[in-house]
Amino acid sequence: MDKTEKTIKKEQVYSGKVINLTKDEVLCPNGQKALREIVHHRGGVAILYKVDDKFIFEKQFRYALNEEIIEAPAGKLEEGEIPLEAAKRELLEETGYRPLDMIHLGDSYPTPGYSSEVIHLYYCPKAVKEERHLDNDENIDLIYLTLEEIEQLIESGAIKDSKTVAAIHLYKRKISKER
Amino acid sequence: MDKTEKTIKKEQVYSGKVINLTKDEVLCPNGQKALREIVHHRGGVAILYKVDDKFIFEKQFRYALNEEIIEAPAGKLEEGEIPLEAAKRELLEETGYRPLDMIHLGDSYPTPGYSSEVIHLYYCPKAVKEERHLDNDENIDLIYLTLEEIEQLIESGAIKDSKTVAAIHLYKRKISKER
Repeated sequence: MDKTEKTIKKEQVYSGKVINLTKDEVLCPNGQKALREIVHHRGGVAILYKVDDKFIFEKQFRYALNEEIIEAPAGKLEEGEIPLEAAKRELLEETGYRPLDMIHLGDSYPTPGYSSEVIHLYYCPKAVKEERHLDNDENIDLIYLTLEEIEQLIESGAIKDSKTVAAIHLYKRKISKER
Repeated sequence: MDKTEKTIKKEQVYSGKVINLTKDEVLCPNGQKALREIVHHRGGVAILYKVDDKFIFEKQFRYALNEEIIEAPAGKLEEGEIPLEAAKRELLEETGYRPLDMIHLGDSYPTPGYSSEVIHLYYCPKAVKEERHLDNDENIDLIYLTLEEIEQLIESGAIKDSKTVAAIHLYKRKISKER
């Protein structure tokens, strides 16, 4: 059975810097009408990169959670930018390493219930050291963690960021057979 | 160094059924002012439950992505509801199994960059069969998958939902030592 929900009406509620919001009236396959509040987001990237067998991770204050969290280097797509270019740019900006290659691990849907966002996950097998170029409103500490340390931080709840967990899960499955 | 961003001004942009949106002006530790667009969400739950060694998963059309996706049973917290109660309620409503026990696997932050949402992840080790009670605007097919089938669907990109990947990752680490 076709489960597609068809748009009856779309109302633009907010148009912002990072997100837009629409309030959509949809027709469900059973004939019911329903309201869908949808966050529109350009999408993002997250990148795993290792120096001497330790992944470069970040400690960053996240205002939405009012908490400093641990996560993989990541960022938003710029207008017109393809995910691969965003991944290369963000790794360089945030860590100072210029990627020489990028392997696409897969994509992640963080919030299918109300957002169009897709996060593209990459592993960088090789890069050269240059300079970091953080945005003015970014305040990021770099930390260096082995795969087992990351696994323990996920298990203990010290790493809760879903794109980071998804990237590590795919890395283990596709790149490394380390346990 | 304290990396906390302090709220200077908070503007309510939208107040809806599932999400609220505020536009906040914040003071960064370096003295810079920045804009933060924040989605406020009550939080959600996702639940892993197995019948005869197969996890009950769902195929559900997600309007925000315009796609039918595969994910674990999940839902939003109701007003005043604690995560454990939401997990019990959602598993029963969506699958027809009433949980007799719930193990908390951990929590997941789907979108730390712009949302306060936390998804609480559970594994149900025991339940009894009753009836499903879907919401009027829910259209969900149940599917039954082994852990290895789920792993293959994650690897191939057929499962991209981040709460599902996080739950499976934690399940493997904490409950099962299956490979």
